[in-house]
Amino acid sequence: VQQAVRRPELEEKRVKALWLDQQVRLRTDLPLPSPGPGEALVRVRLAGVCSTDLALIAGYYPFVGVLGHEFVGEIEASADAANRVGERVVGSINLGCGQCRECLACRPSHCLNRRVLGIKGRDGAFAEYLCLPLDNLHPVPAQVPDLAAVFTEPLAAALQVLDRVELRPGDRVLLIGAGRLGQLIARVVALTGASTEVVARHAHQRARLSLAGIPTLDEHQIEPQRYDLVVEASGAPSGYALARRAVRPRGTLCLKSTYRGQVSVDLSALVVDEVRLVGSRCGPFPAALRLLAQGSVDPTPLIDVTQPLAQGVRAIQQAAEPDVLKVVIDCA
Amino acid sequence: VQQAVRRPELEEKRVKALWLDQQVRLRTDLPLPSPGPGEALVRVRLAGVCSTDLALIAGYYPFVGVLGHEFVGEIEASADAANRVGERVVGSINLGCGQCRECLACRPSHCLNRRVLGIKGRDGAFAEYLCLPLDNLHPVPAQVPDLAAVFTEPLAAALQVLDRVELRPGDRVLLIGAGRLGQLIARVVALTGASTEVVARHAHQRARLSLAGIPTLDEHQIEPQRYDLVVEASGAPSGYALARRAVRPRGTLCLKSTYRGQVSVDLSALVVDEVRLVGSRCGPFPAALRLLAQGSVDPTPLIDVTQPLAQGVRAIQQAAEPDVLKVVIDCA
Repeated sequence: VQQAVRRPELEEKRVKALWLDQQVRLRTDLPLPSPGPGEALVRVRLAGVCSTDLALIAGYYPFVGVLGHEFVGEIEASADAANRVGERVVGSINLGCGQCRECLACRPSHCLNRRVLGIKGRDGAFAEYLCLPLDNLHPVPAQVPDLAAVFTEPLAAALQVLDRVELRPGDRVLLIGAGRLGQLIARVVALTGASTEVVARHAHQRARLSLAGIPTLDEHQIEPQRYDLVVEASGAPSGYALARRAVRPRGTLCLKSTYRGQVSVDLSALVVDEVRLVGSRCGPFPAALRLLAQGSVDPTPLIDVTQPLAQGVRAIQQAAEPDVLKVVIDCA
Repeated sequence: VQQAVRRPELEEKRVKALWLDQQVRLRTDLPLPSPGPGEALVRVRLAGVCSTDLALIAGYYPFVGVLGHEFVGEIEASADAANRVGERVVGSINLGCGQCRECLACRPSHCLNRRVLGIKGRDGAFAEYLCLPLDNLHPVPAQVPDLAAVFTEPLAAALQVLDRVELRPGDRVLLIGAGRLGQLIARVVALTGASTEVVARHAHQRARLSLAGIPTLDEHQIEPQRYDLVVEASGAPSGYALARRAVRPRGTLCLKSTYRGQVSVDLSALVVDEVRLVGSRCGPFPAALRLLAQGSVDPTPLIDVTQPLAQGVRAIQQAAEPDVLKVVIDCA
């Protein structure tokens, strides 16, 4: 086993982080996290607040620890890769065990024993420092500013829609939901050339889509059974019924939202209409970084609030307000 | 508009059929059906009883008319294709309008105005005669006996599983349900080379699969989250829960059963596990006929009962018995 980095001045250090234990609070007494074998210590620059963070606070999963999983930072130390110290990085959030059948089948994000940054078994990014395996850390191209790089994780999740469905440039797509994630999904779907229409409930959501040249519509304007692909990203169980009504026979309904509880589904109607229902979760970081480097997606207009880590509790409250899209926490 | 065939001796004729109007009864007073433009009159030789027939009798859909949609017969007359008279045929069951967007998109089985033989808006096959469009009627290769040809429609429906999913020879497949349709699905899935295991509740179902060299298992032997593809053909809502437990992360769950009512589904878990849920209904007749002609599938051991049309009510009762698989009605 390799030795973790020895930097006595760091080991004594107490660090700040937003700690979830039923409620979120700012802690300033946490020890500096210590990277395990094959891991690096990352100094966080910016972190993004995601709806999953709000769901964790609401008790969706029983997580106790440092919240946050979207970040850009800098490798501060690594016993295994001294040459990477100083590298500006973003990090994929699933830590696979490397041993189970899902890991061995190259599906580490489905590892049966997985830990997930800021979500399950691993302290997260609303902190001055975090630790992740070196393999999870992707270098950020120089032309991508921190304020764009902090969107890499949700942009990758948006791209995972395209990994899980077959979309053709001539297709007609409906996206239900124009929140933090929906905004990014709309942008990557539109890049395929497919006709992209978005059901957006709030004026500020529509304005942001309009900036990107993407048309919006109201629920009552949805043409029934007309869309080749419908993406459900509303975060509400009612979104499923809307999506189901919109998808054409033999069309695809991609589910991006998670929410508590079960939904009543007419499975026989899925059979009769031969509809495909596809779940989609975490996505490919390299592809997301390429889109950001090319400038094909500019997520920065989605930022409504930036707060220092010391104001992190307030930042999270603001993320829950209905007219706020992205909240970024400055952890530097 | 072309003239329908004129055969006075036929026009006077009264014909026998099994008539559904809440209950099924034998009628002997029905007029000979008259083929419309582009259609043919078919003399039915054999017809097969399907679980959908039993569901229609149970009131699943509000159909009044002649029941039955699986058959082999002979073209008796057609004003539009005199050269096809005498041809032995099977018939695909969806009658598209040819005008709607689904028909124009080459999805006639999803026609928005469709009629379906013996199911919706068109008298069916438990009769001495039926009418179908010439385009629906596929010639049966000489080497396929009537007792095999009568399985063409359900065999095509079984093949539709392979049309709707991506299955690779190295995949591991679980089929839930070994009834009339499940038996055929098991056989076509096994032909792909994929490992095929079948959850079969009844001894006679297991015996029939064993004949075809296909292994069976009990519910409690299902390895959770291990199957690349799970096909749900049990005809019972409880089959979904079994199937969901068996499918691996990023695996596919194909739904073949229709049943009344809604099923409670954990959509968030579909998202987290990135599972694909795919509905599958009617399938390709030419492919089914090729498999029968090659002898790659022999469905005839599935026949438990053959009854003349005059005993059709009894035949349908027998099809509902738990230890009976296929019931064939001799309509000649």
